[in-house]
Amino acid sequence: MRKLFLASTSTVHGSPYLEYISTELKSFFKGVHEILFIPYARPSGISYNRYTKHVHTAFSSINIDVKGIHEFEDPKLAVEHAQGIFIGGGNTFELISKLHENDLMQVLRESVNNGTPYFGTSAGSNVAGISIKTTNDMPVVYPPSFEALRLIGFNLNPHYIDLDLTSTHMGETREIRIKEFHIYNDTPVLGLREGSWLAVNGSQVILKGKLNARLFKQNEEAKELSPESDVSYL
Amino acid sequence: MRKLFLASTSTVHGSPYLEYISTELKSFFKGVHEILFIPYARPSGISYNRYTKHVHTAFSSINIDVKGIHEFEDPKLAVEHAQGIFIGGGNTFELISKLHENDLMQVLRESVNNGTPYFGTSAGSNVAGISIKTTNDMPVVYPPSFEALRLIGFNLNPHYIDLDLTSTHMGETREIRIKEFHIYNDTPVLGLREGSWLAVNGSQVILKGKLNARLFKQNEEAKELSPESDVSYL
Repeated sequence: MRKLFLASTSTVHGSPYLEYISTELKSFFKGVHEILFIPYARPSGISYNRYTKHVHTAFSSINIDVKGIHEFEDPKLAVEHAQGIFIGGGNTFELISKLHENDLMQVLRESVNNGTPYFGTSAGSNVAGISIKTTNDMPVVYPPSFEALRLIGFNLNPHYIDLDLTSTHMGETREIRIKEFHIYNDTPVLGLREGSWLAVNGSQVILKGKLNARLFKQNEEAKELSPESDVSYL
Repeated sequence: MRKLFLASTSTVHGSPYLEYISTELKSFFKGVHEILFIPYARPSGISYNRYTKHVHTAFSSINIDVKGIHEFEDPKLAVEHAQGIFIGGGNTFELISKLHENDLMQVLRESVNNGTPYFGTSAGSNVAGISIKTTNDMPVVYPPSFEALRLIGFNLNPHYIDLDLTSTHMGETREIRIKEFHIYNDTPVLGLREGSWLAVNGSQVILKGKLNARLFKQNEEAKELSPESDVSYL
């Protein structure tokens, strides 16, 4: 059965990396002794080794070993043999470029659909959607496609943030940006605030965490969804 | 002689569209009776007609007529014959897509290099650089290329905004995003705060407005440039 854990952020303000979800991750990865980490998003250009080491430390507290995909000769085989998969945050354009370049899109889709648990944070959650067209990242590299893994039937906007009423900045708000997405696309978009995640079990998709999420659909008013909302219908 | 006016924003907080630079625009477009407006960036999906009408109203106060490029049968000929060109803000990905689709990149480059005055705001300033890889916009459409017009020898980041020290949001700051750009690219990036613009005359490029701009170069510390700085060397 498909199992996904798609988090808006790896880190909430004032708390160490992954700590706010460590209990849930332990239960999500129950029975898994080692996960395959995909460090391609490289936040701030961190090396694959350093990024993997950072993740290794975080997962050691829940007794799960971590191997970086770059440590394997054949990344496709590494995905096929993985007990669990984690794609971390960083730059979504660089991440999707490397997934395409290393021809991992199909094998990731198949593995997850066949039951390999998939954990994503930020960019790693973004690529689980239909496309990366609702990422917040700067397009620092040109990917061969904006198509994503289609592990869920809609798009995510991680790190969703509300309009700051005190701001005098004239750049677009997040809501305006997502509405612009719907001028050209009809894929629903779920704005996941920091601290929220989606729990996917088979065909069931549930909003988790303490905060509401904001749902955007083409030609409809945006609406707030409360925690434990079932968004399987999207 | 090449003449460009590249503004960070069309509008500063609390002031009508283009008003904060209306005196400078009047002098920039001296002798020009009609400009060609390129509305492709469509902020919030506004129609080409409505966007052009909006610009028409703003320019009527300085006695300049405005025609939208979509009103011409042959957009390339429209660029060739234009007395002046204005590309307005909106979504940079949609804008660059339409410029490529309508095969306007080369003719725009030639016209501006041959002396047709070019005015850009926000996305319209972004596309004057080397690439659109330092836009802030959401990648709502997939363009055939991220290459831009190369009317200046570096990239701009319009609507540049400083870190908000009171924020608890974990998404990347603008500075972190531009530093990520420099992991993969060596083009210098000038962060133009709202209210700043660049005045290009021939090979001379001067920072205008009351605010500093922030200059980012690969493997160097970012630095602040004061108004009237000459950035022709970039």
